[in-house]
Amino acid sequence: MHSPTQLQQIIEDALCKENFDGKPSRLYQPVAYTISLGGKRLRPVLLLMGCELFEGNIDHAIKPAIGIELFHNFTLIHDDIMDDAPLRRGKSSVYRKWNTDIAILSGDVMFALAYKYISSAENNFNAILNVFNQTAIEVCEGQQYDMDFEEEDNVSINNYMNMISLKTAALLACSLKIGAYVGNADNKNARTIYNFGKYIGIAFQLRDDLLDVYADENKFGKQTGGDIKSAKKTFLYLKALEISDSKLRKTLKSIYNDNSMVFSEKVDKVRSIYDRLSIQTLTNKEIEKHTNSAFKELENVEVDNIRKEPLVDYTRELMSRVI
Amino acid sequence: MHSPTQLQQIIEDALCKENFDGKPSRLYQPVAYTISLGGKRLRPVLLLMGCELFEGNIDHAIKPAIGIELFHNFTLIHDDIMDDAPLRRGKSSVYRKWNTDIAILSGDVMFALAYKYISSAENNFNAILNVFNQTAIEVCEGQQYDMDFEEEDNVSINNYMNMISLKTAALLACSLKIGAYVGNADNKNARTIYNFGKYIGIAFQLRDDLLDVYADENKFGKQTGGDIKSAKKTFLYLKALEISDSKLRKTLKSIYNDNSMVFSEKVDKVRSIYDRLSIQTLTNKEIEKHTNSAFKELENVEVDNIRKEPLVDYTRELMSRVI
Repeated sequence: MHSPTQLQQIIEDALCKENFDGKPSRLYQPVAYTISLGGKRLRPVLLLMGCELFEGNIDHAIKPAIGIELFHNFTLIHDDIMDDAPLRRGKSSVYRKWNTDIAILSGDVMFALAYKYISSAENNFNAILNVFNQTAIEVCEGQQYDMDFEEEDNVSINNYMNMISLKTAALLACSLKIGAYVGNADNKNARTIYNFGKYIGIAFQLRDDLLDVYADENKFGKQTGGDIKSAKKTFLYLKALEISDSKLRKTLKSIYNDNSMVFSEKVDKVRSIYDRLSIQTLTNKEIEKHTNSAFKELENVEVDNIRKEPLVDYTRELMSRVI
Repeated sequence: MHSPTQLQQIIEDALCKENFDGKPSRLYQPVAYTISLGGKRLRPVLLLMGCELFEGNIDHAIKPAIGIELFHNFTLIHDDIMDDAPLRRGKSSVYRKWNTDIAILSGDVMFALAYKYISSAENNFNAILNVFNQTAIEVCEGQQYDMDFEEEDNVSINNYMNMISLKTAALLACSLKIGAYVGNADNKNARTIYNFGKYIGIAFQLRDDLLDVYADENKFGKQTGGDIKSAKKTFLYLKALEISDSKLRKTLKSIYNDNSMVFSEKVDKVRSIYDRLSIQTLTNKEIEKHTNSAFKELENVEVDNIRKEPLVDYTRELMSRVI
């Protein structure tokens, strides 16, 4: 079995060997560019880990893992258009570096390429396609809810949890399940590892929300406060609205939606309300709850405990990303 | 066996029964809207015909046929953004009726839905997925070449034929091949009917180019001259450039790229050059060449000739669309 770091390297090497830079070049250059921007390769790593959990040969999981990474990057390219995001991993987003038409179409071809890579799976081909189809649909639904929430005034925490479950957690869960199927897991175990992935996916997104407000910028690698700046309805914000009295709720809403306020002042004010309400602690509790649910699912996976250790370690690593 | 008209009705009924109008509604309303706009349902009809050619049961081909129609409509939604097209089948295009973000994302979910429907095929699942994956990639490549050609000065007829082969013909061929596989055709016959589809796809596009200049507007259902107005490098234009002397070539180029000229004047002038060069006859010859190649492929399909008749009739019908 491999460590997550080793698996990440295996993915990087495999991505390097693939030549995404075909013809017409204006279609494929953005594909090669996006893949070259790097990242944690979280989803393909989870796919390989899902495979190794069931004693599968990861050589057979590499192509589907590349497929999952292509799919994830396709969603980023299209999301960046919708979010007017100028940067992706510190570099120009595709629609800024080229243009919107190119970003739409190179995203589309990445989606098709994702299917091509995933279709090279040999074991449980039908089951793999089914979970991937369903997940691709759910990711789109999640992204639409995310956009809808920008304009809605009464987003509940339940709405939010459903949205991140679709937009973020489904793909992590799907990655693990595809890996499990490549490793010839049966349906029951594949479902259990999928549920594990759903829980860690939700915990992972909540951790992301938390880091965006409370991370040490030097270690975080980017400026904090981005969600506050863009008035994003995160778990922290919705939780704060839920537990504050009507006066404080009104104050928080008015600060959060004030576009004219100086950025640092807005962040300080929101953070101080969060602190008064112990939002950091409450968010950590929620993260812990989902992480524990994930571990309970993992217990039910019918393989030797020693095979589960890399997943436990990797989950802990993801959940202890610097504050 | 069913006639094309009967098959079109079967597709319409099947599409009506599907409920594309899910939640979130801003994601799915454009899907239902686009499908409701109608059309010839050419691709799903060809898929069903491919199935019946090999004595397959079309009940098993309905879901893949819906998948092909969803895929085609996804490409239309994204193409309309790239082409700034305000209308689609006489109604507002999705990006105009909603907005670009919605058009991108509802297009994406249609692509995913297309895969879901196509994945319900039972026979030759791997082969069906492979041809669909490859075709989806080729359609994107074709669209990129089409956009590239707008900015290029030296597009050859070969370049153009390659572009329409990818952008248009590949999906017609793919539809027939998927139908053939649903009908349990072997690889050799599936390949042959694919080649038939490629040829009629090219002929179909050339016919489209011709109708855009020479159709009787009352029967055509829309204004002619659209390609001339937008200076689109069609077969007619490229052929005219190829066979004209340098003086006429210069004149044609200058008229074609003159955005200030009154529309009707521009169309008349271009059409009169085309007439001098017998472009209508030359295009019809090219259409005939590809149609004949298609029929030669069809001869090689190893089924009774009587089974081929609906495809022959349908091809003739498509190629005799009103001038």
